[in-house]
Amino acid sequence: MKLKNLVGDRFKNRPSDCQIDSHAIMIRGGYIKYMANGIFSSYTPVKRITRKIEQIIREEMDAIDGQEVQFPVVMPAGIWEESGRYESIGSELLRFRDRNGSPMVLGMTHEEASVHLVREYAQSYTKYPFMIYQIQTKFRDEARPRGGLIRVREFTMKDAYSFHTSQEDLEEYYEKCHKAYERIFRRCGVPEVVSVKSDSGMMGGSVSHEFMLLTPVGEDSIAICSECGYSANMEASESIVENTRDEFSQSLEKVFTPNIHTIEEVCDFLKTPVEKSCKAVVYQKNEDDSYVTVFLRGDMDVNETKLRNLIGAEIHPAVITEESCLHAGFIGPVGISENTMVLFDSSLKNTNNLSCGANEDEYHFTGLDLSRDVPNAEYHDLAKIKDGGICPCCRKKSISVSRGIEVGNIFQLGTKYTKAMGMTYLDSEGNSQYPIMGCYGIGVGRLSASVCEAHHDDYGPIWPMPIAPWQVHICAVRSDNEQVRATADNLYKTLTDMGIEVIYDDREVSAGVMFADADLLGVPLRVIVSPRNLKDNCCELVSRDKTFSDKKSVGEVANAVAEYVKEKMNI
Amino acid sequence: MKLKNLVGDRFKNRPSDCQIDSHAIMIRGGYIKYMANGIFSSYTPVKRITRKIEQIIREEMDAIDGQEVQFPVVMPAGIWEESGRYESIGSELLRFRDRNGSPMVLGMTHEEASVHLVREYAQSYTKYPFMIYQIQTKFRDEARPRGGLIRVREFTMKDAYSFHTSQEDLEEYYEKCHKAYERIFRRCGVPEVVSVKSDSGMMGGSVSHEFMLLTPVGEDSIAICSECGYSANMEASESIVENTRDEFSQSLEKVFTPNIHTIEEVCDFLKTPVEKSCKAVVYQKNEDDSYVTVFLRGDMDVNETKLRNLIGAEIHPAVITEESCLHAGFIGPVGISENTMVLFDSSLKNTNNLSCGANEDEYHFTGLDLSRDVPNAEYHDLAKIKDGGICPCCRKKSISVSRGIEVGNIFQLGTKYTKAMGMTYLDSEGNSQYPIMGCYGIGVGRLSASVCEAHHDDYGPIWPMPIAPWQVHICAVRSDNEQVRATADNLYKTLTDMGIEVIYDDREVSAGVMFADADLLGVPLRVIVSPRNLKDNCCELVSRDKTFSDKKSVGEVANAVAEYVKEKMNI
Repeated sequence: MKLKNLVGDRFKNRPSDCQIDSHAIMIRGGYIKYMANGIFSSYTPVKRITRKIEQIIREEMDAIDGQEVQFPVVMPAGIWEESGRYESIGSELLRFRDRNGSPMVLGMTHEEASVHLVREYAQSYTKYPFMIYQIQTKFRDEARPRGGLIRVREFTMKDAYSFHTSQEDLEEYYEKCHKAYERIFRRCGVPEVVSVKSDSGMMGGSVSHEFMLLTPVGEDSIAICSECGYSANMEASESIVENTRDEFSQSLEKVFTPNIHTIEEVCDFLKTPVEKSCKAVVYQKNEDDSYVTVFLRGDMDVNETKLRNLIGAEIHPAVITEESCLHAGFIGPVGISENTMVLFDSSLKNTNNLSCGANEDEYHFTGLDLSRDVPNAEYHDLAKIKDGGICPCCRKKSISVSRGIEVGNIFQLGTKYTKAMGMTYLDSEGNSQYPIMGCYGIGVGRLSASVCEAHHDDYGPIWPMPIAPWQVHICAVRSDNEQVRATADNLYKTLTDMGIEVIYDDREVSAGVMFADADLLGVPLRVIVSPRNLKDNCCELVSRDKTFSDKKSVGEVANAVAEYVKEKMNI
Repeated sequence: MKLKNLVGDRFKNRPSDCQIDSHAIMIRGGYIKYMANGIFSSYTPVKRITRKIEQIIREEMDAIDGQEVQFPVVMPAGIWEESGRYESIGSELLRFRDRNGSPMVLGMTHEEASVHLVREYAQSYTKYPFMIYQIQTKFRDEARPRGGLIRVREFTMKDAYSFHTSQEDLEEYYEKCHKAYERIFRRCGVPEVVSVKSDSGMMGGSVSHEFMLLTPVGEDSIAICSECGYSANMEASESIVENTRDEFSQSLEKVFTPNIHTIEEVCDFLKTPVEKSCKAVVYQKNEDDSYVTVFLRGDMDVNETKLRNLIGAEIHPAVITEESCLHAGFIGPVGISENTMVLFDSSLKNTNNLSCGANEDEYHFTGLDLSRDVPNAEYHDLAKIKDGGICPCCRKKSISVSRGIEVGNIFQLGTKYTKAMGMTYLDSEGNSQYPIMGCYGIGVGRLSASVCEAHHDDYGPIWPMPIAPWQVHICAVRSDNEQVRATADNLYKTLTDMGIEVIYDDREVSAGVMFADADLLGVPLRVIVSPRNLKDNCCELVSRDKTFSDKKSVGEVANAVAEYVKEKMNI
């Protein structure tokens, strides 16, 4: 198509409300338009990109015997009540009533719908295994949408659900799907996406992986071992510390510590290292606001995901009231109020000579010996893994923590949904069994933004050929020149007839404006038709990433373009 | 793919809750699954059909310079308040609040969103004309979903919006789009779809057309002239009657008519033809329950769409209370209570010697002369056109009324939305102007169901090749026979490698079960590999519609299939 007809504005200045580059580029380049918090309309360029991503996903899902289906966006609350998630999921699940007053939800994921679709069909073991998937709009009422298409409320997602009669069969298929995901990300131009072990969260199940594009602007933290290749979302990483114990234990002594609250202030005041302190972090359960206090070594932080999983409840940072008998800033394990559940992180196990709160305003203890003073404590893995920490796999101090954007995930769900929703089949011996499920997601819009985040420069995105909005961008510099006009018009027609996707800029604007717009559209190959080139009977070919440039005679240019496109499509 | 892996059940018996054939077939054939009132999941066969329909639509929209975009499903109420439709549309617009309490709606159409997307972009006349379209999930909270995919609450729709700087330009584009629609329906295998003039309803604007598939199970009534080709939705058809007036007017006389209420009973009692009566039909406005009484000739019916348009308000059939001073069953134009608005249909103009209610319980008048007794009456076109009625175009008595399913519509919207939402551009003289809009819809799922309704037999659908879920259906009858197995496997591989879409039934089931399933999947060409055919070194080719059958030697069959498919793709 002709660029002059393309709906959408392009401009130079970075909008002040864009924190990350892909967001800024997608606004500046006329890709998306903000409508409401976490809700965007898409212009043609991003629509063309996401359709290509969808087609790649579709091909790879079909290649592992997936069957494309479609579930509703609007679902009756009933099937979510069957699974128990109507109650257990927070306000990110949008609930409302229809005109008849029936409770409905907007689909944020479709485990329930997938079981609903197949539970009558798959009542015999002979029907297994199978996988169904859809590419569909979803809505998740995020509290904090951010980063353009990175974290939105309405999004397009490919979600797939597989059904099996044995754990081995699930694991085999899971591995197949893992490989299909690697192909998808490679074909979308981001082979650098890594898979990491993850926490299964509200999905249920045990084993799960996230596919992460590593980038400083990512919102997930990933622990990666430089020695053995271990990688996991920090939420799911075991934290291992070498606990040290002094030979002699001091006695427990109460110290007056006026106006001193944080653990750092205490250690400063006492002139002890922060590792020799016992820190309290207090939460409340969402369900009843009851208190949960976690004690851990002063230099460690609580991994709230592990805490949630341990206690099986949603939590939030505590608001400590006077009635609680807790003393904010002075909480310690000895003599703590019975109004709170008390948990200990493994980092404290068997340690001594620590400072900690004395559960009395303005007082701390020194000389805490956990074994002596809290003899019945049980210890759990509740801390965040740290940069330089010990690898849970090879046990070397080789962990580095990186940031990443989650572009896909795969879960071994087990029988959580089939059990809850009463889906069974008869096995070969006639016994009733629950099928075992896996589920597999990719956010299409987020993937497009992630590719942009990974592949751009100051001037715009550098789209990989297989997902670029167009394959070739013709710039007719000085289209008022008769020869330029005729050559470019002809090339446009020739390439289009060859089945190549061309965006053609024949506006009478300066080369500067033309090239700036081309940079913002990020089409991988540019052909420049200009009076200067035509003097030598040539056109100029330049790649968007600047790694390639060439001149071809007017007669050769179409074939040269076709060859370049073909080569770059096969990545 | 292999049929044995296809998710979804097929069965013989028509479900008792299916009123129309396409609904029954789609349930019986494993196409759709009911989830809630007007909400279905789609299995793979219908997903494949709708994806092909979408691609045909996409190609035809691109061919008339459409640009594919995407609007959100969930929109903030704000942009619907700008257009005024947040207030004016009834409960079919699903309204709810998000987690922050912000009012939101589910998109049932996207005029507002389209203006929102382009109003900053298109501020100069040089940007016009342009058309943007999307293919997206919509939700319309229908009071009475019915007929499977014919009338649902959640549906996929192609909606397009064009923007122009003159009415002439809109009309030219409207005509282009009309032609594109004809191509779309032809390519989808329903060239019999007709376009009819329609009422613009809640969309605003003046000229509009609906594309109708004529079928007795349609829910729209269409007036078609057999003489001049005029066609219009009955809602939008002018009703013309030849009013007759007797030479002598009788005097108005009150008659005791005990227990007589309907106009038919009155005419029976008085032994006069129903054409010589004046019927009252009473409504109430939704906004304030005030009464609206329409008088029309006894044999005519009120066209409520015309009534709504005339009074500019939504209405419902009246509940007549005692306080209203109306006398249900005895309402007439002479001496009627002032508690109601009174309207007269053109069918009464200048007529005389009619019977009518006397506005008194148990009494009617005879001898009503409208000119004499209601001298100040104004007459409007408020009646439904009738079978055998007068054509508003050629004036012959050649109207027949048919039923049809609306599969698409096109509207000339004018400036309703651009004015309401403050979208302007500067014309070539620097004056601020409102752009003129057109909008163009096609329901994708409804179209698939309509094709099924138009093309099926007792055993299942007969899908046209361009939208069939698969192009060829291989039946390996007696797949336990080694030669059958080898031949069918080989043919499956050969055809698939040739790029033909094949569903392959290699189950060890009877030919009867196999063919019944094939009928339900409705694939246009069937290849039967059986021991009997192989004795002659042949395979049998049969078309689903029974118009074609042939035998080909095993060596020739792949090419014969390819040729047949190619021919049938070009309809």
